[in-house]
Amino acid sequence: MSSTAGQVIRCRAAVAWEAGKALVIEEVDVAPPQAMEVRLKILYTSVCRSDIYFWEAKGQIPLFPRIFGHEAAGIVESVGDGVTDLKPGDHVIPVPSGECKECIHCKSKESNICDLLRVNLGRGVMISDGQSRFSINGKPIYHFVGTSTYSEYTVVHVGCVAKINPLAPLDKVCILGCGISSGLGAVFECSKNHQRDHQLLFFGLGAVGLAAAEGARISGASRIIGVDVNPKKFDHAKNFGVSEFVNPKDHDKPVQEVIAEMTGGGVDRSIECTGDVDAMISAFECVHDGWGVAVLVGVPHKDAVFKTHPMNLLHQRTLKGTLFGNYKPRTDLPAIVEKYMNKELVLEKFITHEVPFAEINKAYEFMLNGDSLRCIIRMDG
Amino acid sequence: MSSTAGQVIRCRAAVAWEAGKALVIEEVDVAPPQAMEVRLKILYTSVCRSDIYFWEAKGQIPLFPRIFGHEAAGIVESVGDGVTDLKPGDHVIPVPSGECKECIHCKSKESNICDLLRVNLGRGVMISDGQSRFSINGKPIYHFVGTSTYSEYTVVHVGCVAKINPLAPLDKVCILGCGISSGLGAVFECSKNHQRDHQLLFFGLGAVGLAAAEGARISGASRIIGVDVNPKKFDHAKNFGVSEFVNPKDHDKPVQEVIAEMTGGGVDRSIECTGDVDAMISAFECVHDGWGVAVLVGVPHKDAVFKTHPMNLLHQRTLKGTLFGNYKPRTDLPAIVEKYMNKELVLEKFITHEVPFAEINKAYEFMLNGDSLRCIIRMDG
Ligand SMILES: NC(=O)c1ccc[n+]([C@@H]2O[C@H](COP(=O)([O-])OP(=O)(O)OC[C@H]3O[C@@H](n4cnc5c(N)ncnc54)[C@H](O)[C@@H]3O)[C@@H](O)[C@H]2O)c1
Ligand SMILES: NC(=O)c1ccc[n+]([C@@H]2O[C@H](COP(=O)([O-])OP(=O)(O)OC[C@H]3O[C@@H](n4cnc5c(N)ncnc54)[C@H](O)[C@@H]3O)[C@@H](O)[C@H]2O)c1
Ligand SMILES: [Zn+2]
Ligand SMILES: [Zn+2]
Ligand SMILES: [Zn+2]
Ligand SMILES: [Zn+2]
Repeated sequence: MSSTAGQVIRCRAAVAWEAGKALVIEEVDVAPPQAMEVRLKILYTSVCRSDIYFWEAKGQIPLFPRIFGHEAAGIVESVGDGVTDLKPGDHVIPVPSGECKECIHCKSKESNICDLLRVNLGRGVMISDGQSRFSINGKPIYHFVGTSTYSEYTVVHVGCVAKINPLAPLDKVCILGCGISSGLGAVFECSKNHQRDHQLLFFGLGAVGLAAAEGARISGASRIIGVDVNPKKFDHAKNFGVSEFVNPKDHDKPVQEVIAEMTGGGVDRSIECTGDVDAMISAFECVHDGWGVAVLVGVPHKDAVFKTHPMNLLHQRTLKGTLFGNYKPRTDLPAIVEKYMNKELVLEKFITHEVPFAEINKAYEFMLNGDSLRCIIRMDG
Repeated sequence: MSSTAGQVIRCRAAVAWEAGKALVIEEVDVAPPQAMEVRLKILYTSVCRSDIYFWEAKGQIPLFPRIFGHEAAGIVESVGDGVTDLKPGDHVIPVPSGECKECIHCKSKESNICDLLRVNLGRGVMISDGQSRFSINGKPIYHFVGTSTYSEYTVVHVGCVAKINPLAPLDKVCILGCGISSGLGAVFECSKNHQRDHQLLFFGLGAVGLAAAEGARISGASRIIGVDVNPKKFDHAKNFGVSEFVNPKDHDKPVQEVIAEMTGGGVDRSIECTGDVDAMISAFECVHDGWGVAVLVGVPHKDAVFKTHPMNLLHQRTLKGTLFGNYKPRTDLPAIVEKYMNKELVLEKFITHEVPFAEINKAYEFMLNGDSLRCIIRMDG
């Protein structure tokens, strides 16, 4: 038992008081974990585009004050009643989309969107009692996707915590908590059960898109094409086996037509990693008729509408989407960490920046300016 | 060699002179087949919904005068230069979507939309020379989807003709030329590579939807739900193992919500066989998140737009479409005929009416009134 178990912990957290305003490092009180919850000491965290969307709250429902953060790694500090899978000292990665292991989704081989613990972007409280575990002077601060890792300590449902190899460097594997796994898994999902798999194309060359490129390289794609509206992104992308680039802004005609011309009618697989609904539509319409498969990964604005002519579907194109790369987090994440440990998967090239916790707003700026793939935030700094 | 080979044949054909106006039985001249074409003597034909759409020309481009018809069976009368796979006397089923056996699609295991011979709804002439083989007093009459089976003789590209078992009764297997095969194949396509496959739902209980139900029965579905806006359709459907019915008009809320309530969150598979874009959207949105697959079969209006919120996809629903049930017509159709010969597949229950050719407008009326599944038209009558 740690000496803090059962106690409120006062520690630093980056609080978003208002939409789009700089995060403020505050002293917050973190309540002890309740039944089926664990309290984690976060050591490293990073910024994923979804942290930005809900902080900007432009296309999303605003909920403030809130503690963002959902890509992280840390150590279990204490556990609540009924928790048997984890104990203090375990090395863990928290995940926004959990796995209860009991529901129809957790029992299905095909689904990872747990009925109990699926991502709920609008909820800012714990499931068990509808309360927040964070407060400042007794005033509650909302959680974000059940993780809120921009805090030295956070409370998470046990189903949203993957226990990993204690030898894994937490400052690297922390980024497996969301974006990288989501992009990687999307490629495998996209190729699963399909034959031709030569040409892959990605919309969005952020960390998620490049993780998909990394997955394509691992699975032996012959041609990897990247699409982004920000030409800065093409530099990083060269390290990921992306050999051809398309910037939709360089062309007068719709990008799906440009791609069809480049590829003799369309690509075999396309993966959308932007969150932009026009890119989603293009990503679908640019796959080859007869066998093309498009997978959506980007998180859309709340009012976005995907539109296409049904004939594009009748011509035997397939459209799907994935959350967290279709991985079941507790079951599958430890094995992805092992892929990194075995050097099958390289994480270092996704890490373009590093800042101490006190400078977390810089990490936000790197993402906002399109400069970073992932910026690691050291919680001890 | 038949005595008519190389000659123009004058015979009866049902000509659509104007959109939506009764077909008129006329004497037409049918030119001999050119290179890679065959001339068929049609013995039986039927009416598929697509014959109605392009005749009504409400949501489709009008092209008149035209000879409709694309579900049929007959006998090869003569063949053009270069035709080696077929000879006079062969029993055949013409198909709108052909198979050249040479192109990238024909060579792919996944696709059946031949680059050369895919359905072209707007073309009214032969591919080789851009001319029609039908004329009245020298004035050309347009073809329809390369088949134009509402004529005692018709000219078809050899790639659009499946040679079948000469023992098969042509007045039954004629309906395999389009709708029945399309519905049947859609179920197999929809279930392919997917695990859970208990609950199937169909939008549209015409012959295509009921063929899908027949496929579901053959593949052992545990629950088959039919949706139609026309309650007359429920009677026929009972003969096809459809055990539950939903009429969207009986409910105030969207039908996808009704279905979610009936099925604990959605069906495993759903197949849209209506051509109505709202039904397409409902068919997609009513599949279960995590693993649900929806397949579109209906032919949409030319300006139809499929719309959905991208989160419906991210929640791991899959959407695709098929033409001719993903079957390669020359390769696969003979085996479907054998399924009928072995009594695995029952065709009789799709045949609700029969008329002599002279009364072909009655067959149109049965379809328009929603009374028929398939009406067989005897060309000798
Ligand atoms: N499905 C999931 O489980 C999951 C998990 C993590 C992240 N996401 C989402 O994936 C997306 C990418 O995340 P990220 O962290 O890599 O973000 P990012 O901002 O680093 O990368 C997105 C890239 O898309 C580009 N882009 C934007 N609009 C575009 C357009 N119309 N055409 C082409 N390129 C365009 C941007 O320039 C940027 O480089 C986000 O929407 C994020 O919310 C989804
Ligand atoms: N993809 C292909 O290869 C292919 C092949 C053949 C036919 N088709 C198409 O399949 C569809 C069905 O053909 P069919 O011959 O069975 O036609 P049909 O007219 O006999 O059957 C269609 C049924 O759909 C019902 N319907 C219409 N709108 C509906 C709605 N909004 N909700 C529920 N039910 C609705 C009608 O009442 C009717 O019973 C047509 O669109 C046809 O063009 C496609
Ligand atoms: Zn679960
Ligand atoms: Zn994320
Ligand atoms: Zn072909
Ligand atoms: Zn048809």
